[in-house]
Amino acid sequence: MEYKFLSSLDLPSELKNLTYNEKYDLCCEIRTKIIETVSKNGGHLASNLGAVELTLALHSVFNSPEDKIVFDVGHQSYAHKLLTGRFDKFNTLRQNGGLSGFTRPSESEHDPAVSGHSSNSISVALGLAQAMKLKGDSHHAIAVIGDGALTGGLAYEGLNNAGRSGANIIVVLNYNEMSISKNVGGIAKYLSELRTKDSYKKTKSLTKRFLDAIPFVGDSIKRTISASKEGLKEELLHCTIFEDLGFDFIGPINGHNVEELEAAFVSAQKINGPVLVQVNTVKGYGYMPAEVQPGEYHGVPSFNIETGEKPAVDETFADHFGKTLAEMARKDDRICAITAAMKYGSGLNHFDGELKKRLFDVGIAEEHAVCFAAGLAKEGMLPVFSVYSSFLQRCYDELIHDVAIEGLHVVLAIGNAGIVGEDGETHQGLFDVPFLGTIPNVTVYSPSSFTELELCLNQAIYRDNGLVCVRFPKGADVALNECRCDYEHNRNGSDTLLISYGKEYESVLGAANELKADTLKLVKIMPVNDEVYSIISKYKNVFFFEESSRSGSVGQMLKTHRNDIMHYAVDGFVPSMKICEAKDLYKLTQDRIIEEVRNHI
Amino acid sequence: MEYKFLSSLDLPSELKNLTYNEKYDLCCEIRTKIIETVSKNGGHLASNLGAVELTLALHSVFNSPEDKIVFDVGHQSYAHKLLTGRFDKFNTLRQNGGLSGFTRPSESEHDPAVSGHSSNSISVALGLAQAMKLKGDSHHAIAVIGDGALTGGLAYEGLNNAGRSGANIIVVLNYNEMSISKNVGGIAKYLSELRTKDSYKKTKSLTKRFLDAIPFVGDSIKRTISASKEGLKEELLHCTIFEDLGFDFIGPINGHNVEELEAAFVSAQKINGPVLVQVNTVKGYGYMPAEVQPGEYHGVPSFNIETGEKPAVDETFADHFGKTLAEMARKDDRICAITAAMKYGSGLNHFDGELKKRLFDVGIAEEHAVCFAAGLAKEGMLPVFSVYSSFLQRCYDELIHDVAIEGLHVVLAIGNAGIVGEDGETHQGLFDVPFLGTIPNVTVYSPSSFTELELCLNQAIYRDNGLVCVRFPKGADVALNECRCDYEHNRNGSDTLLISYGKEYESVLGAANELKADTLKLVKIMPVNDEVYSIISKYKNVFFFEESSRSGSVGQMLKTHRNDIMHYAVDGFVPSMKICEAKDLYKLTQDRIIEEVRNHI
Repeated sequence: MEYKFLSSLDLPSELKNLTYNEKYDLCCEIRTKIIETVSKNGGHLASNLGAVELTLALHSVFNSPEDKIVFDVGHQSYAHKLLTGRFDKFNTLRQNGGLSGFTRPSESEHDPAVSGHSSNSISVALGLAQAMKLKGDSHHAIAVIGDGALTGGLAYEGLNNAGRSGANIIVVLNYNEMSISKNVGGIAKYLSELRTKDSYKKTKSLTKRFLDAIPFVGDSIKRTISASKEGLKEELLHCTIFEDLGFDFIGPINGHNVEELEAAFVSAQKINGPVLVQVNTVKGYGYMPAEVQPGEYHGVPSFNIETGEKPAVDETFADHFGKTLAEMARKDDRICAITAAMKYGSGLNHFDGELKKRLFDVGIAEEHAVCFAAGLAKEGMLPVFSVYSSFLQRCYDELIHDVAIEGLHVVLAIGNAGIVGEDGETHQGLFDVPFLGTIPNVTVYSPSSFTELELCLNQAIYRDNGLVCVRFPKGADVALNECRCDYEHNRNGSDTLLISYGKEYESVLGAANELKADTLKLVKIMPVNDEVYSIISKYKNVFFFEESSRSGSVGQMLKTHRNDIMHYAVDGFVPSMKICEAKDLYKLTQDRIIEEVRNHI
Repeated sequence: MEYKFLSSLDLPSELKNLTYNEKYDLCCEIRTKIIETVSKNGGHLASNLGAVELTLALHSVFNSPEDKIVFDVGHQSYAHKLLTGRFDKFNTLRQNGGLSGFTRPSESEHDPAVSGHSSNSISVALGLAQAMKLKGDSHHAIAVIGDGALTGGLAYEGLNNAGRSGANIIVVLNYNEMSISKNVGGIAKYLSELRTKDSYKKTKSLTKRFLDAIPFVGDSIKRTISASKEGLKEELLHCTIFEDLGFDFIGPINGHNVEELEAAFVSAQKINGPVLVQVNTVKGYGYMPAEVQPGEYHGVPSFNIETGEKPAVDETFADHFGKTLAEMARKDDRICAITAAMKYGSGLNHFDGELKKRLFDVGIAEEHAVCFAAGLAKEGMLPVFSVYSSFLQRCYDELIHDVAIEGLHVVLAIGNAGIVGEDGETHQGLFDVPFLGTIPNVTVYSPSSFTELELCLNQAIYRDNGLVCVRFPKGADVALNECRCDYEHNRNGSDTLLISYGKEYESVLGAANELKADTLKLVKIMPVNDEVYSIISKYKNVFFFEESSRSGSVGQMLKTHRNDIMHYAVDGFVPSMKICEAKDLYKLTQDRIIEEVRNHI
């Protein structure tokens, strides 16, 4: 495909010169480029396709980077990247040294904030808006947030503060009835009712009036706007939660109609103070397979554009966890499963049929999930919260306050633990070991095979007490020998010991075979069995390899007992790159391990 | 005072036999007992006085512990304690081995959850309610939450999930227009408008009808209730945010009228599914000094009952921080201050006059505070978020995601760092050092005197970059020698070195003088200056004392360099007791330090 506009225009500035027909052609180019790139590199598809017109309209009306557009989660920011000078680099999306799949201020002045985790955009945008207000700068801060992200409490904290701030903040609610799965909870139902309200049509006619007014400047436009604002207020006051919180409300707007979108944004731009614009979009818009199955095409690996076909994938740890837990739950009606809007990623899609009533999808609300689990546990249930490592960071306080202080028996199934690859900094599972390690009386397992996962899960649910975590990596089984949920010491008579846990043990075992070194595989990583210390004390050379941020890691803990352990872990944040590339960087691949050990002994 | 009812009744069960006149007398006894006890032991006063009738009415209508009453924050749970068999022990409130100032399941079967941190009650209650529903138990879970706590996003996550749950959950909104200070944000304004809505009167007449119906059972009461429910729906549908989220709404109710309260709770009890009851109360009700200045009498030390007079207190670290920052802010208009509903506790009451527009009270919304600070920093402001150590736990993810990944320059002023005494487990500042230590590139200062605090703050704001924390203890200056924001090595020619930081250094210095030992005071505790390692390596005996949870502490980090450091820190959770008692328990007092050092060298 030839990218007539994308390859020639100086964007976003020259966007303002285009006719609407040209803008639609540009949308088409953007969509094609996104589909083409994601089909090769993998990435977020459905969410990005849904936000093309919305993003183009924002850049047509506002002036980035003076106006700041903050994308919540960032999995809808590809069109924004293409419209802000990153078309040439777009082929490098999610590659080592290439563009991030999310917004990154280090990548462009048009990205005012890091994105990746949900529901922060309104708060960040309000900070930008208040700073601009203090500096006497009348530009706008704009938060683009989906209804999925609106189930997160942080978004509500942002709305609550923005609504009465008087600052020039515009919240664009990208309403598509989805987070990753179908959206849940009271706010979802509420918005769904709002979607079809009469106000939709009324606002349409109002925005038509704005549109008509665009060519004229001066007093007449001001009068029109002022009258419309009053009209809007009268029509909609006390109709929406957002107005109750202090926002002017515009919408719902057809999110695939550039004219309507621009009119709404022009209206919003002219209002002093906080405005919320509700935009109805279709996730996956313009690519049939993604429109039909937006959940399946939310985040994808490479795929066939013609057919939408994705490569067959091996059973993942998450899948295997979900199947195992579902099997256990069929035999024990105390087992409950909790997911924060990630039924598929968490493996809990296997909670079907009669189990559905014990599956709780709480929306993007990890903090609630932990407190809710505490309540279930207190009443004798066996709650298991399945969550990605990086999103568990949200619940640190609740893990301490609502679970650990009372010693309630809550099980965490922590997916994507360790290095995750292309999703980069915000999604690495490198902090769960360090922060869980600061919680008194926590138990943590890090199985390295499916069989071990089963054993650990059984142990966590039926033998252990208090807060118990079973963490497992992204991807598939590496078929290592199983063990007994504790540790496995493999002796070859060497005076060199290589220690690891989880998936990293695969690399360590390979290296040890080559080096004829002994290995120690930890499965229960907190608390470490006392015998581990005595094993370690018997070796001349001890090496520890782990996919964890260094500070607070298991290796550091062992080093408080023996300083001369050679410890390999991750320092700092790890951007988009393949898992093997990141492991190479931190000397965690089999080859690098061999090299390091040979250099040191 | 003679406690006629409290000393003789079997509570809560015999509550149901009392006349309304007797119930009001009992309320009077409860209030007197609370004032009497808090005037001696210190504690939360205004919030507890406001919730007396509310709590009594709950226990009159519901059957605890089968019905579960979850108090949010727990600073309004004293009446609950007195009504659930804890009158005899009430004199031990907040004392070592005595009753906690918050709810604790370990203390009573009537306390279903730990409380202390805000906004979790709806989520916990929903967990309890869903578990009961799964077990076929039709009892209710009741969350009692103030409008202050409703500014926290976690509460909204709870509402969002509860609203469409179909579970028997009742949310009692204790509306008093306050968190600790005056409540803020969109939701506060909204509720304030709701307080005086017509529905108030309508509901009053409706509840009158319920009240009239109480003596009769069977069909007639069901019809009444059913009709009223429809009536309520018609009157109020789409009038409140809570109904938008799926709740039946009752209220506002006069929170000091037991009859009205009971009628409302009876109505709520009969409705299947989630109900929200708004109860208007007066913080400090029944004790004039607290009614007039509820903020001043929220949490208090011992005081004179007759006059309300509190003992004069020395200037605290928080105060000194606030004054210092205000002074800096008057000279630099980039400095902004943020508090999460704790203007006084955070010392930011000194941001007055022209500085007010750079003071942001964001409500009980610590996560928002961090993202908001990130936005301010991105636009060139110098944001300082002043927050207690234990509440900072809420922002762990945001500190990583929104601040550290981009390396934004955000300053945290962390108060109540270390052991805090009578507030117990939930309020100890023992985790900030461990969890901050897991964040890449963080800088942390722990000054031990006011002068050091000033130096560190200046360094944090003007010299350092990225996430920089200045943590300081509860209470007043200990007037030690100042130093240069890094470390101070005091040599007496000893081969024994005692290391510490923060307020704990006072005990260590005292002990070292007695022992003729050398000392090393750390001020910058992360990252530790490299010279510190070389100093440590020169001593025969090294001791490290710190008011921090052990795992992930500074001492553990030093032990990765030298295993034989004798390290004294806190293990597990520390309940209510005086600071000196807790320090004694963990061998952190001057006398214990002397004893330990003598025993080991």
